[in-house]
Amino acid sequence: MAASLLHTPEGVRDIYGGECARKLEVQSLISKVFRRYGYQNIETPTFEFFDIFSKERGSVTSQEMFKFFDRDNNTLVLRPDMTPAIARCYTKYFMEEQVPVRLRYRERTFINNNSYQGRLKETTQTGVELIGDDSAGADAEVIAMVVDALKSAGLRQFQVELGQVDFFRGLTEEAGMDAETRETLRELIENKNYFGVEELVSRQEISAELKELFLRLPELFGGFEMLPELKEKITNARSRRAIERLQQVQEILEQYGLADYVSCDLGMLGNYQYYTGIIFKAYTYGSGEYIVTGGRYDHLLRQFGKDAAAVGFGIVIDRLMLALSRQNIEIGVAAVHRLILYEAAAQQEAVRRAAALRADGENVCLTLRNPRAGLEVYKEFAKKNGIGQIEYLDGGGTAVWTPEKNAD
Amino acid sequence: MAASLLHTPEGVRDIYGGECARKLEVQSLISKVFRRYGYQNIETPTFEFFDIFSKERGSVTSQEMFKFFDRDNNTLVLRPDMTPAIARCYTKYFMEEQVPVRLRYRERTFINNNSYQGRLKETTQTGVELIGDDSAGADAEVIAMVVDALKSAGLRQFQVELGQVDFFRGLTEEAGMDAETRETLRELIENKNYFGVEELVSRQEISAELKELFLRLPELFGGFEMLPELKEKITNARSRRAIERLQQVQEILEQYGLADYVSCDLGMLGNYQYYTGIIFKAYTYGSGEYIVTGGRYDHLLRQFGKDAAAVGFGIVIDRLMLALSRQNIEIGVAAVHRLILYEAAAQQEAVRRAAALRADGENVCLTLRNPRAGLEVYKEFAKKNGIGQIEYLDGGGTAVWTPEKNAD
Repeated sequence: MAASLLHTPEGVRDIYGGECARKLEVQSLISKVFRRYGYQNIETPTFEFFDIFSKERGSVTSQEMFKFFDRDNNTLVLRPDMTPAIARCYTKYFMEEQVPVRLRYRERTFINNNSYQGRLKETTQTGVELIGDDSAGADAEVIAMVVDALKSAGLRQFQVELGQVDFFRGLTEEAGMDAETRETLRELIENKNYFGVEELVSRQEISAELKELFLRLPELFGGFEMLPELKEKITNARSRRAIERLQQVQEILEQYGLADYVSCDLGMLGNYQYYTGIIFKAYTYGSGEYIVTGGRYDHLLRQFGKDAAAVGFGIVIDRLMLALSRQNIEIGVAAVHRLILYEAAAQQEAVRRAAALRADGENVCLTLRNPRAGLEVYKEFAKKNGIGQIEYLDGGGTAVWTPEKNAD
Repeated sequence: MAASLLHTPEGVRDIYGGECARKLEVQSLISKVFRRYGYQNIETPTFEFFDIFSKERGSVTSQEMFKFFDRDNNTLVLRPDMTPAIARCYTKYFMEEQVPVRLRYRERTFINNNSYQGRLKETTQTGVELIGDDSAGADAEVIAMVVDALKSAGLRQFQVELGQVDFFRGLTEEAGMDAETRETLRELIENKNYFGVEELVSRQEISAELKELFLRLPELFGGFEMLPELKEKITNARSRRAIERLQQVQEILEQYGLADYVSCDLGMLGNYQYYTGIIFKAYTYGSGEYIVTGGRYDHLLRQFGKDAAAVGFGIVIDRLMLALSRQNIEIGVAAVHRLILYEAAAQQEAVRRAAALRADGENVCLTLRNPRAGLEVYKEFAKKNGIGQIEYLDGGGTAVWTPEKNAD
């Protein structure tokens, strides 16, 4: 029986030791960046009514949510995503606010994916939502925050890819596609099924230029310098405005001095229903999947009862930590400075010594020596845990070891 | 429809604005105390297999857990308590460790109580577990940490009440009670049903002295000075040792200089199945319920596969915050220093100014002025959010307001 008690469910895990210390440090560094930009913390419940995350507002399908019932038989879900929860809060607590509201969060989110995908079902996400500002400046601000946040975590090589869902919507409108055809085409492109795209597009009664644009979508990524030429080819106003917005955002990112980290990808169409304008994902080496996802969602708030433009992103901390680890990026964490090991006879002295050192700001581990454990056990422990020094109080005097020098 | 989208399930809530900032600050202060004592962070999954928290190991009944199923139809629960989860981790990751392991955590826990109790179903708990040390020094260390943690949060008037479950067990053994009678008696005492206690005790064939002790249990609280006299009256070894342990712990707390915050209560019998030695609860004004609960659980680890003594506690952050608020205790939080409000013409200047101030460590909120919103709207916003200064860049120059002086 004992063995089975050691298991955790598929897709969730424990984090401890150095890994946990580094995770908390990275979270703290990112949190400081969000604070610099004037964002306020918010916490929402781990579970909410299913409706908050249902299809019209949803980031994942109903099947991918963990569901259960409250005592009144309402369906509850573990939140799969923070954005709808914060949209709910904004409408509830900031109904009368005319000034843009800046919120930041760090929470666990839960997606009940198929376990054979090997993905985590519980992840820590930290991010921001900037609500009540539809300007390109707001778009640029959150993208600048992504860059600053990843840099603060120690990441050096990463890229934020910027898309614009309105570019694609403009093209499909111009082509006169109905919602269903548009959704089919979006999925084909997202799944990189180019034969499917070609087949679907060839069936449409549209101009050769427009056909070519649809077929070229997957190639429309790279530097912003491609945008002016592309804009020339666009005849519908919506797609043109989409490109202009990307150009404005890029210009402001230049002013932040952060444009080098950002490129554009017009073939990125967004897998969340609620996105309406720019969308973006950040990638780095060592993580096969994006480590940040975000975008503009100007119509989501309306569903909750207040019409307000909004833009935000979430960083998947677990993926970021994996990438940092695979890139061998060091993260400084607060160590335990000293282990005070004492024999029963030195108890009073040891407690007072530890209390005095702690009052001086030292991190001190105080341990009564186990008579059955040799001193080398403690030296090994100190070494393994990066403890700078052992003080051994045996009641007669004090012996000091610094593990790096003396151990073994 | 929109209105219903604003609700959260019974017993859970959003935390935002100043309340959230203060909560995070208090958590950070407590976290620093735990670090001073050499404790390492650990995170465990929000949900686990039901078995981890089932009756033998449990802190709450099965009915009080949120349960659901994974894709293989195993029963999962939202963790009601951290201690069994950490016991599992200890056995899994520290099987060979001979030196005491010190772990700290901050997590959400979930109890599906009846909503008419008006209690929170989701709370934030932070605490520690000290595993592999059965000494009175270990007991005293964690109690000292409770005191230091509550002091660090700004609390001044609080009391840690110390019980010893072995005292009661020794008495029931001496009385020859079976497990069922003992449990009935424990519940009667916990529920302060003194007529029930009297009736049950009077039915036992035991000495008049022992009867009197059972009846006096609810009165056995106060200073440690009552212990020597009490010890004289005890004839069974287990209860005597329990008293001696309390005396040792108190003595070490004197050495920490923290004994003033601690009193004893031998009528406290512990509502968690797993406690074996000292148990304690901390109380303060403004919270009807305990804000900290903890104790020794020397037999829990064995169930997971490694026999190890352990002691720990959890602070219910939500209750602590309520008490701090009701006691009007101020908690300093990092404010937004400046709001830079700009007209479109000053966009470039505004971005550069904000970026420069942030690089200098200032928390700056940057906002494009909404032409439909008067300047007084922003002044009001700054005032409400404790923002020190507004800089208004209209493209021609800069106007500065300090809300305290100029607003209105």
